[in-house]
Amino acid sequence: MLTDAAALEAYAWDNTGVRMRPQAAALAVDAAGVAAALACCAQHNVPVTPRGAGTGNVGGALALHGGVILSTQRMTRIVDVDPADRVAVVEPGVINATLQQAAGEHGLFWPPAPSSARACSIGGNLAMGAAGPNSLRYGGARNWTLSLEAALADGSLIHTGSRAAKDVAGFDLTSLLVGSEGTLGIITRATLKLAPKPTHERLMRAAFASVDAAAQAVSAIMASGEAPGALEIMDAACLDLLREAGMAIPEGARALLLAQAAGDAQSCALQADALRDQLLAHNPLELFVAADEQEAKRAWEARYKLSPALKKLSPKRVNEDIVVPVSQLPALFDGVAQIAARWELPCANFGHAGDGNIHVNFLVDPADPAQTEKIAPALDQLFALVTRLEGSLTGEHGVGAMKRDYLTWQTGVPAWDWQRRIKQLFDPNGILNPGKIFSEDPRPRPHSVV
Amino acid sequence: MLTDAAALEAYAWDNTGVRMRPQAAALAVDAAGVAAALACCAQHNVPVTPRGAGTGNVGGALALHGGVILSTQRMTRIVDVDPADRVAVVEPGVINATLQQAAGEHGLFWPPAPSSARACSIGGNLAMGAAGPNSLRYGGARNWTLSLEAALADGSLIHTGSRAAKDVAGFDLTSLLVGSEGTLGIITRATLKLAPKPTHERLMRAAFASVDAAAQAVSAIMASGEAPGALEIMDAACLDLLREAGMAIPEGARALLLAQAAGDAQSCALQADALRDQLLAHNPLELFVAADEQEAKRAWEARYKLSPALKKLSPKRVNEDIVVPVSQLPALFDGVAQIAARWELPCANFGHAGDGNIHVNFLVDPADPAQTEKIAPALDQLFALVTRLEGSLTGEHGVGAMKRDYLTWQTGVPAWDWQRRIKQLFDPNGILNPGKIFSEDPRPRPHSVV
Ligand SMILES: Cc1cc2nc3c(=O)[nH]c(=O)nc-3n(C[C@H](O)[C@H](O)[C@H](O)COP(=O)(O)OP(=O)(O)OC[C@H]3O[C@@H](n4cnc5c(N)ncnc54)[C@H](O)[C@@H]3O)c2cc1C
Ligand SMILES: Cc1cc2nc3c(=O)[nH]c(=O)nc-3n(C[C@H](O)[C@H](O)[C@H](O)COP(=O)(O)OP(=O)(O)OC[C@H]3O[C@@H](n4cnc5c(N)ncnc54)[C@H](O)[C@@H]3O)c2cc1C
Repeated sequence: MLTDAAALEAYAWDNTGVRMRPQAAALAVDAAGVAAALACCAQHNVPVTPRGAGTGNVGGALALHGGVILSTQRMTRIVDVDPADRVAVVEPGVINATLQQAAGEHGLFWPPAPSSARACSIGGNLAMGAAGPNSLRYGGARNWTLSLEAALADGSLIHTGSRAAKDVAGFDLTSLLVGSEGTLGIITRATLKLAPKPTHERLMRAAFASVDAAAQAVSAIMASGEAPGALEIMDAACLDLLREAGMAIPEGARALLLAQAAGDAQSCALQADALRDQLLAHNPLELFVAADEQEAKRAWEARYKLSPALKKLSPKRVNEDIVVPVSQLPALFDGVAQIAARWELPCANFGHAGDGNIHVNFLVDPADPAQTEKIAPALDQLFALVTRLEGSLTGEHGVGAMKRDYLTWQTGVPAWDWQRRIKQLFDPNGILNPGKIFSEDPRPRPHSVV
Repeated sequence: MLTDAAALEAYAWDNTGVRMRPQAAALAVDAAGVAAALACCAQHNVPVTPRGAGTGNVGGALALHGGVILSTQRMTRIVDVDPADRVAVVEPGVINATLQQAAGEHGLFWPPAPSSARACSIGGNLAMGAAGPNSLRYGGARNWTLSLEAALADGSLIHTGSRAAKDVAGFDLTSLLVGSEGTLGIITRATLKLAPKPTHERLMRAAFASVDAAAQAVSAIMASGEAPGALEIMDAACLDLLREAGMAIPEGARALLLAQAAGDAQSCALQADALRDQLLAHNPLELFVAADEQEAKRAWEARYKLSPALKKLSPKRVNEDIVVPVSQLPALFDGVAQIAARWELPCANFGHAGDGNIHVNFLVDPADPAQTEKIAPALDQLFALVTRLEGSLTGEHGVGAMKRDYLTWQTGVPAWDWQRRIKQLFDPNGILNPGKIFSEDPRPRPHSVV
């Protein structure tokens, strides 16, 4: 248990840029310890904020109401990787990339692999329902979790699911805990389903004259055949940034797609052919097919350099993570452009285009009062647009503290209220990660959308 | 609203063979009607049992506590099939095969396709978390449901999820409702995710000298590469039955595998080659590769004729639906043989071997008191075995009335109790499908397993 102010600084941050020092940090070493810490905090009515690696984007791991940070960073045992059952059993503090490495030795992997895989923890991944580029084909964390052990607010431990591949025995508590962002319980162990790792990948990069043309290509690809291994988009603002960072981006390009075929040697080659044809059918300015892993790596770099470049340009940028049905991508990009123009906000968009999951970035400092005045109505319009397009406020980053005021816009009040009642059932005194997902002050929805 | 005794006979049965006449049947035509019926029943504290097509195996659609059957049989609109977003929006009374047909016109399908697809409803599929042979590759109903509308016990309507392919906005109420067997709410509309339908399939049938040899082959196939389109097993007792029914089963065969490659022309051919090699490596007595659709159909017939043949032989057979991790299949078959021998119960086993989901059939009449005495301890041993192997009591048929007394054996009391509290939260007066999933009288677990 740490209480020293300097030591606590290490538990005061996440990827939002907000700092919030807790009163104490408990570094659990096993499930019994997590449960005991919760029992103790329950007794003294002290807030507990679970924390994995602190890479979250929505303030989830920040101790907004003070109290104790419950860190899983010392619970890093990979208990079992079983190639026969294709199952891994891990403690929550295991880093995603560490698990991938252990599974990789058997030709397997755990499909939820966020771009932050080298830093984030499995516990954080499960709590957020994390996903990544390859979720296009595999789906997010819920699809790849068989069973959980979790400590609840009353200090008890429960076990959900089983090691079996199919299981409909009673309510799906596993899926309820996955994505509950540490507000219902603290995950202390997980049995994860693994998949065979594609042995071959082929990356191609297509440059388009407009984001609309690129979005049309995405819709067409997604409406035909098996989903590619990945299908990522970057808009004109992103490309300008990459040009400034010295990357070679085709002249005149105002959108870029990265499309990846994946599978065994032959199925990968087949898919690559089909992808190339579909991209060509949408008149790209340029189509580059990586000849080898080296070239693929360089092409991917554009995507991976984007987050840091944006961060450098605008350290406290507003980074949203909205999703629309893929056929609505052109409407989304059009609407976002209108919103950005209307409020004169610099804006850069990129993301997992294949499943309609776009990271919308307003490149401003939300702490600057002149900007805040514009960001609030711009976000109102963005979320109103997304929900009108039957999309979601968040595809992988979660609600946390950042989107809680808007949640009812997507769920409606009745479904939101049932979620709140479930929260109260599991945690009647509200000690588990208070201030996350649920708002005391939901925002009224604007009457007009762009 | 039907109250006539003769008319009510049509709502008195399901696939368990038990008959239980309700006091009334309400044939809803829309969501508002379902909600109004629930509000009315809540006011008068009358039990409501949702009912789709009545093909369930666990007594789920039986009005165990009397009251009203709420039938969705008139809610059969396919509201939307959208090939661009790969989404279908349906009312709950739509028959599974009808949806498959509508989706098929766009080269798509909804992966949860139970063997009962021509008879069962989507509402029933969702309520049970249904699956089928191809769930080996695609997973069950939870993976293929984006959004639900449901009427709750208080007569209100809620909406969960969205039309977006990725969505982590708040708790996963969709997965909570899917598989809740009509005990938390009545599904009135569903937005379903569709998948591209494989254009090519190739079926092969391998006969083995022992069920152990077949189970070893299954483990090996599942531990290598992508899952086949289907991988089904039948044991010696099943084969004897099929022989009696006049089917040509290789002499000396004591187990049969049906393995299906599926995909587009080329990927299907590749997978078929790999499957054949793997089957041959396990020394089958015979390997038959269907040359065309006609031959494949005949080979599948063995599997589809099994249920009716078993039913004819033993109309009230005890039909379980257990799952074990696939590496434990040999241990399971061995244990089941010991249990059957110990209690002198004729027993036939078949099922979705690839995901370890085996239908264990004790071919006796549970109403015969001499048999009941043996069935109870045999089932005790079966479920004790399955949970010891870290499996599940049910992979697709659900808990219903038939397995409720055993549920804690898998979940443990704490997780079971949290499920019960969720039930009480959503339905404090217990009017929604009473007597299902939760038992007033959980069975004590036996001390010894086979
Ligand atoms: C550069 C970068 C790229 C990213 N790319 C992606 C991406 O592609 N996809 C994606 O999904 N996310 C992405 N993220 C976001 C982030 O990495 C994920 O949300 C990740 O899952 C968080 O894991 P963590 O261990 O850092 O969790 P933390 O930030 O420590 O915590 C996140 C939340 O989980 C809760 N929590 C943590 N551990 C537990 C536990 N054991 N039990 C219960 N609750 C717990 C916390 O209370 C908090 O609410 C990215 C972030 C960065 C910085
Ligand atoms: C020959 C045969 C083969 C089968 N093969 C399979 C198989 O391969 N895989 C498989 O999973 N199952 C299989 N089954 C079981 C059965 O078909 C499935 O459970 C199916 O999903 C039930 O659908 P139904 O419409 O008949 O539901 P019903 O039997 O009418 O009801 C089943 C349950 O769902 C509830 N329910 C129904 N509609 C709603 C609604 N709208 N909202 C809330 N609750 C509702 C009922 O209360 C009940 O608890 C098989 C059955 C038979 C007879």
